[in-house]
Amino acid sequence: MPLVHIHLRKGKPREHVRAIADGVHRALGETFGVPADDRFQFVHQYEPDEAIVDPHYFGIERGGDAVFIEIVASDWRDTAAKKALFARIAALLAERPGLRPEDVQIVLAPNKREDWSFGLGRASYVTD
Amino acid sequence: MPLVHIHLRKGKPREHVRAIADGVHRALGETFGVPADDRFQFVHQYEPDEAIVDPHYFGIERGGDAVFIEIVASDWRDTAAKKALFARIAALLAERPGLRPEDVQIVLAPNKREDWSFGLGRASYVTD
Amino acid sequence: MPLVHIHLRKGKPREHVRAIADGVHRALGETFGVPADDRFQFVHQYEPDEAIVDPHYFGIERGGDAVFIEIVASDWRDTAAKKALFARIAALLAERPGLRPEDVQIVLAPNKREDWSFGLGRASYVTD
Repeated sequence: MPLVHIHLRKGKPREHVRAIADGVHRALGETFGVPADDRFQFVHQYEPDEAIVDPHYFGIERGGDAVFIEIVASDWRDTAAKKALFARIAALLAERPGLRPEDVQIVLAPNKREDWSFGLGRASYVTD
Repeated sequence: MPLVHIHLRKGKPREHVRAIADGVHRALGETFGVPADDRFQFVHQYEPDEAIVDPHYFGIERGGDAVFIEIVASDWRDTAAKKALFARIAALLAERPGLRPEDVQIVLAPNKREDWSFGLGRASYVTD
Repeated sequence: MPLVHIHLRKGKPREHVRAIADGVHRALGETFGVPADDRFQFVHQYEPDEAIVDPHYFGIERGGDAVFIEIVASDWRDTAAKKALFARIAALLAERPGLRPEDVQIVLAPNKREDWSFGLGRASYVTD
């Protein structure tokens, strides 16, 4: 059920962008139990002026490759699952496309099971 | 009070996009009681590589016309109202612009009444 | 910890856009206690057809300069802090770039402290 928005600066090859999307989805499967085909991702690519990302916040040195991953997901996972997700995304994006873990920012936006419709005008996760 | 983001692939005529926006707004009025002039919608159009939408998830066959409608709305509606909203959006978009109900994905992002300012620097729905 | 999305119509000079981003960030510092270097903002600029903003809702007259500011922030601030934020954003944007307070719309999208990772794959605000 997650909806994923991937924010990054323009200029990267499509393989780079795809590897980020693939890694995020794989991490969601491994740590949140998201099914392989439950994949809905949108990529937002910005001009330099349109993406303001602090290079030092929290004592972490970010560079021009920094990405911000915004995930809308129902809020029934606990903190341990969230920590596992964050760690796994950073690890997978370090493998491919080779992002520094410092450059991977993630935010979860919680909603509820009843807040999703995956077609046919139905509340997909509500059982009558 | 809703803020609506409409996500779809690039290449549709403006009348198609406008019909989606109109249908979503009409459905919000009919099922959530949103006033006719409480309309704030942004349309995001993606290159093929930037929109990753699974074509089969949940046993529903999606095509290239698939849209994802993301609605920020205060979370005081119950599940019945949400179900009515989903059904009405799908029905209206089937009429115009003629979307298959399989191609209509919707997600609600909840907040609270106190989280909105519709101008003048005021919390619009907080009464002192 | 906020993530800020700034939505406005295309066509404004970069200084105009930057002044909006600066004002929002300064207001977050002054009213929400956000550190100066905790700054993550993305700017979304729309064609006229892609931004549907009602010009009269709530008795407020909006013009073509209207902006919609969407702020993801952990929901531990009270209503007084939110009211202060809204008022301060409108006041600062009236100074620079000179927006009418009627043209400043703001929405908060709440999440929790455990929902953020600012790099290194860690839940930044969770202490073990």
